[in-house]
Amino acid sequence: MRKFTSVKDVPDVLSLSDEALALKNAPFSQEGLGKHKTLGLIFMNPSLRTRISSQKAATSLGMEVMVLNVDKEGWALEFREGAIMNGTTVEHVKDAAAAMGRYCDIIGIRCFPGLQNREEDYAEIILNQFIRYAGVPVISLESATLHPLQSLADLITIRETWKESGRKPKVVLTWAPHIKALPQAVANSFAEWMLAAGMDLSITHPPGMELKEDFTRGARIIHHQDEALQDADFIYVKNWSSYQDYGHTLHQPEWMLTEEKLRHSSLGKIMHCLPVRRNVELSDELLDSARSLVISQADNRIWAAQVVLKKMLDNL
Amino acid sequence: MRKFTSVKDVPDVLSLSDEALALKNAPFSQEGLGKHKTLGLIFMNPSLRTRISSQKAATSLGMEVMVLNVDKEGWALEFREGAIMNGTTVEHVKDAAAAMGRYCDIIGIRCFPGLQNREEDYAEIILNQFIRYAGVPVISLESATLHPLQSLADLITIRETWKESGRKPKVVLTWAPHIKALPQAVANSFAEWMLAAGMDLSITHPPGMELKEDFTRGARIIHHQDEALQDADFIYVKNWSSYQDYGHTLHQPEWMLTEEKLRHSSLGKIMHCLPVRRNVELSDELLDSARSLVISQADNRIWAAQVVLKKMLDNL
Amino acid sequence: MRKFTSVKDVPDVLSLSDEALALKNAPFSQEGLGKHKTLGLIFMNPSLRTRISSQKAATSLGMEVMVLNVDKEGWALEFREGAIMNGTTVEHVKDAAAAMGRYCDIIGIRCFPGLQNREEDYAEIILNQFIRYAGVPVISLESATLHPLQSLADLITIRETWKESGRKPKVVLTWAPHIKALPQAVANSFAEWMLAAGMDLSITHPPGMELKEDFTRGARIIHHQDEALQDADFIYVKNWSSYQDYGHTLHQPEWMLTEEKLRHSSLGKIMHCLPVRRNVELSDELLDSARSLVISQADNRIWAAQVVLKKMLDNL
Repeated sequence: MRKFTSVKDVPDVLSLSDEALALKNAPFSQEGLGKHKTLGLIFMNPSLRTRISSQKAATSLGMEVMVLNVDKEGWALEFREGAIMNGTTVEHVKDAAAAMGRYCDIIGIRCFPGLQNREEDYAEIILNQFIRYAGVPVISLESATLHPLQSLADLITIRETWKESGRKPKVVLTWAPHIKALPQAVANSFAEWMLAAGMDLSITHPPGMELKEDFTRGARIIHHQDEALQDADFIYVKNWSSYQDYGHTLHQPEWMLTEEKLRHSSLGKIMHCLPVRRNVELSDELLDSARSLVISQADNRIWAAQVVLKKMLDNL
Repeated sequence: MRKFTSVKDVPDVLSLSDEALALKNAPFSQEGLGKHKTLGLIFMNPSLRTRISSQKAATSLGMEVMVLNVDKEGWALEFREGAIMNGTTVEHVKDAAAAMGRYCDIIGIRCFPGLQNREEDYAEIILNQFIRYAGVPVISLESATLHPLQSLADLITIRETWKESGRKPKVVLTWAPHIKALPQAVANSFAEWMLAAGMDLSITHPPGMELKEDFTRGARIIHHQDEALQDADFIYVKNWSSYQDYGHTLHQPEWMLTEEKLRHSSLGKIMHCLPVRRNVELSDELLDSARSLVISQADNRIWAAQVVLKKMLDNL
Repeated sequence: MRKFTSVKDVPDVLSLSDEALALKNAPFSQEGLGKHKTLGLIFMNPSLRTRISSQKAATSLGMEVMVLNVDKEGWALEFREGAIMNGTTVEHVKDAAAAMGRYCDIIGIRCFPGLQNREEDYAEIILNQFIRYAGVPVISLESATLHPLQSLADLITIRETWKESGRKPKVVLTWAPHIKALPQAVANSFAEWMLAAGMDLSITHPPGMELKEDFTRGARIIHHQDEALQDADFIYVKNWSSYQDYGHTLHQPEWMLTEEKLRHSSLGKIMHCLPVRRNVELSDELLDSARSLVISQADNRIWAAQVVLKKMLDNL
């Protein structure tokens, strides 16, 4: 694997999640694999779970990890070809990525969208420029439009939880209220991974919150939350801002998920990628119940990162 | 040992300091003990000595270390049960601590007091919520009211310095001037550790600067600095703000410790936890003299951290 | 080697660069050398290449690395002897450096100039105080006036590139435009290293941009850029602010290096320490051409750091 930026980079998502679960059972079974190899983690935006879980995954494989927390002040990168750099940018991605590629065997990078310009965000300029110039394998640690390590962890969580062999689980992604405009990345990514894994996926959200169709083709889109939740086995709660009216958010507190709303899906498990705004996105009663898988999802971030690193190390 | 937050978590302080000194003599004697174990260090407030000494201690035991520098902007935690999180907090401690507990085998956390609300600070809400939800052993890296790793290092320093077998050393904690209102943590903690170790402890400070009695019961409280310093073997210099008039500080520059004040304790050693405001808290002549133990105290932070980690690893 | 702050600390620059190239060929050949040794990297100013390359070099030698990013808010150090510390500084370098010396076997420190007071900057107060009080070997990670790790990497780059045995290469350091006032450190340092290595060095810059003569004695100073560039084998492009009119900068965009200016040095290689302002200091066409050595220079930062650490470890 030379890059991990989308489900499209993965030949077989089910076998990848199986391998991740094998690593979960034997975390140090491959600890010689990363000997003398360096993972560079570049954060253009802050991170908690992603940094810590990736670091843990890499050290369990025997790698050295170097973390670079970049903020706009410290290392403003230029991305435009041919730019005359007499302004605020201090280094071109060509030079920065190429240098990092000499120091690291694998690079992970986090780069959020600006949510101002849809074409720019969906072109994934930062991520793609890094891939182009780094010269080493690159892992998305959440890009402008996708968060594949989260989705792989989500898939692992569903697969280790679901024990019924006779039928596929019914998975529902439900939009949740939030006080801020958030990226579509987690939702886009969850949709494309669930569909690639052959899950029965429904997506429910207020009208106007449709995700980009490229990611959701094959899922049922249902504007009525109650209807969508019926008989759900896994309910993924997540806010996102509008793709159509780009970056716009809605004030619809009635979309908060509560116990009462799950009266027709009494066995449904609750998922969220964290951090979660309690009693805004979903209620304490759900998060604190045995239904909740959120801590398992956080845990599975380790094995998602570890299996991706393993695949890349195998090919170095 | 499942937590290290106070002297009360330690069955026998003398034997713990003996074990620390044994590690000082053979730092790498236990380097297999922490293999495949991860220490997470969470700093809600800045740190220098604590972070570096804990990191060094952990790596000498073979552990991996992950540092999380948290500031209010980056990761504002919610601590109130049942909070509707539509404000500035972005994650509840329940979720943050539980996730960290999946990534780390032991967690260290630093969380200073606000010095605004005494009940809140002395309830140690942050520390206790982390302990409650992390699910792994927790070490205080200085909490709102105590700094046990510093006090253990101080005890180690006194015990390795004191060679007279016939009598216990006379230890004096003296309040010092400062330009800022500081927590009571180092002073509270030093008092409780000295008393637990059976030292002859006097505490001297201006009236109104009494520490919480829970920590000082058994010590002589003397408001006359000259009288307290007489024949002292160890003189611990430290500023703290008022416990009674909570968070209030005093402008009393005459409390600065100088050579002249030690005319009746000519052999007394000088201690301070650092960082020290020179010529405000105590004079250059003392800090730069052979009396000063401050760099040994800083050094002994390593062995304090290492013995605590060892005890926790022994029980994992 | 007890310190690495200038070419003067190196007995033989050619043999040092030979040893660095040997490490480049066998990066892990000395990985037992740094076992149980700790490198502390203290950044008073931000860093990217220097931190990452030093960290990589140290771990390849088996060392543990601890990074301390210090900014003015977090850890304002006092450097004046006898200061009454009732102001903004929170710790004296005497105490801070001595404590760090207990935690680390080797310390690297970065401390840029203020560019306000020439005498102060050129006295290298911060670096020298750290050396005086740390009690362990100290490496400059770029000080107020010199950047020896960069210059060693530059020398390595020239020596691995230059294959003609009959004559010495002609090396030209050319001043470049920039929008900010930059230190003289890279230029001072490049000059002293090239001269110590016996290179044929010319320096070209606008009048008034003369570097301190201590560093350039033995080089030709040429104010006419075209004349200086003629038949150059290596052209080092760098901005610096004025040493004479201290910290002052010039607006002279016509000094930007372009392909057209190299019509009489068609084989000359282009060097720059990065980060580079493209199309301000030099043109895209040069940076993106096969002439450019800038990424090799960045790569060679690893081996420069590694050979210096090796020399220090050899003597611990």
